[in-house]
Amino acid sequence: MNPKMTPYNINEFKNPLFTVDSVLFTVEHNCLKVLLVKRANEPFLGSWGLPGGFVNVDADATTDITALRNLKEKTNVAPQYLEQLQTFSNTSRDPRGFSVTLVYFALIAAQQVSSHIATIDEVQWVELDKLNSLSMAFDHKMIIEHAKQRLQQKALYSMVPVYCLPEYFTVGQLKSVIETIIGKTIQRKSLIRRIEAANMFEAIDEKVKSGGRLAQQYKVKSGVDIVHFERNLSV
Amino acid sequence: MNPKMTPYNINEFKNPLFTVDSVLFTVEHNCLKVLLVKRANEPFLGSWGLPGGFVNVDADATTDITALRNLKEKTNVAPQYLEQLQTFSNTSRDPRGFSVTLVYFALIAAQQVSSHIATIDEVQWVELDKLNSLSMAFDHKMIIEHAKQRLQQKALYSMVPVYCLPEYFTVGQLKSVIETIIGKTIQRKSLIRRIEAANMFEAIDEKVKSGGRLAQQYKVKSGVDIVHFERNLSV
Repeated sequence: MNPKMTPYNINEFKNPLFTVDSVLFTVEHNCLKVLLVKRANEPFLGSWGLPGGFVNVDADATTDITALRNLKEKTNVAPQYLEQLQTFSNTSRDPRGFSVTLVYFALIAAQQVSSHIATIDEVQWVELDKLNSLSMAFDHKMIIEHAKQRLQQKALYSMVPVYCLPEYFTVGQLKSVIETIIGKTIQRKSLIRRIEAANMFEAIDEKVKSGGRLAQQYKVKSGVDIVHFERNLSV
Repeated sequence: MNPKMTPYNINEFKNPLFTVDSVLFTVEHNCLKVLLVKRANEPFLGSWGLPGGFVNVDADATTDITALRNLKEKTNVAPQYLEQLQTFSNTSRDPRGFSVTLVYFALIAAQQVSSHIATIDEVQWVELDKLNSLSMAFDHKMIIEHAKQRLQQKALYSMVPVYCLPEYFTVGQLKSVIETIIGKTIQRKSLIRRIEAANMFEAIDEKVKSGGRLAQQYKVKSGVDIVHFERNLSV
């Protein structure tokens, strides 16, 4: 710091509340689900919300770390990647005052979740179709809707849906998760053309039974990035 | 607020610094330029940075308002729209401590700028090619690079470049600003096909001289949104 600077005390100013929340999606039993926690504290005690929390300025190097730390602490989930969705803010979303939340999102394979800390009562994967029947905290329902739309765009333009598949998967499994995410049927032959163009999967020797036939299994080549396409999948 | 809640005092906690910055681009004389202010305060006194600042939690309804208010106060520019770029954060970008900045961006027509407040020495449109010769504050040079890449993507996939044109413009003028933004030549006939497909412009009666001929002028139809295309412009 420049020695001419007078020491800066951030708490001399009125600060906005700043939180970091994550929208984690998975596909399980042909349902798109989101990871939610039941709040054990005010505000919105007893309501369901996104796993998230405040920055620990002494421990977090960036807000990416804040997001991952809160996920790990509150749900025991450690995703391989997180992407920024958007920042939401206003004076009414949190009863404590002007509040900003930076939202991350990701699609991951379904995994066990468990509540680790006292401020969380319960944690679970909830079907998106069932959100209306829950009491939801803050503006988290609207935020999940934004995240879903972004995920659907990504599913049409990229191979992001492989993130929720097991290590070995068939074309049928990939087709199924894409269809669950976008809520529409896609053509098997367009998907196969896309798989060939992406050149990011390799066929593995072991085949699996699928409807009486043996189906080819694939895995993502090591060190390969998710491929983005110029055109969307024809639906 | 729930009456059972104990009053929440945000300053009992260590808060991150939270700022809102804007990257405004324009195209002038075939150059892509960015709006910068010369800082009259520490940190980075005398360096050039993006116009921005802190949230005024008593006056700003959202961070969108914070961005617009800071732009107006510091540069006298009032853009018609702003879009969120991304949030940047770490422990080293600001010498005062863990700092988060929410960055907005927009492309606008070149307009007069002027410094209105004491914390700003000077304000001007700076060519992107000249940033290396300036002393830049914080990580703003890196942020401008991110914003430029996003703008280039938008110029390939949408009609966003019309935002920096005057009310009446020719195909040649639109072609020229797109080429300046993406740094490559585009085909006139692809652009004309795109203009027809977009159906967002109307021809106006008044023609202008262009290289010895009379060129058709267009304007954006009223109430029309910027059209986004599925494929990028062939370059």
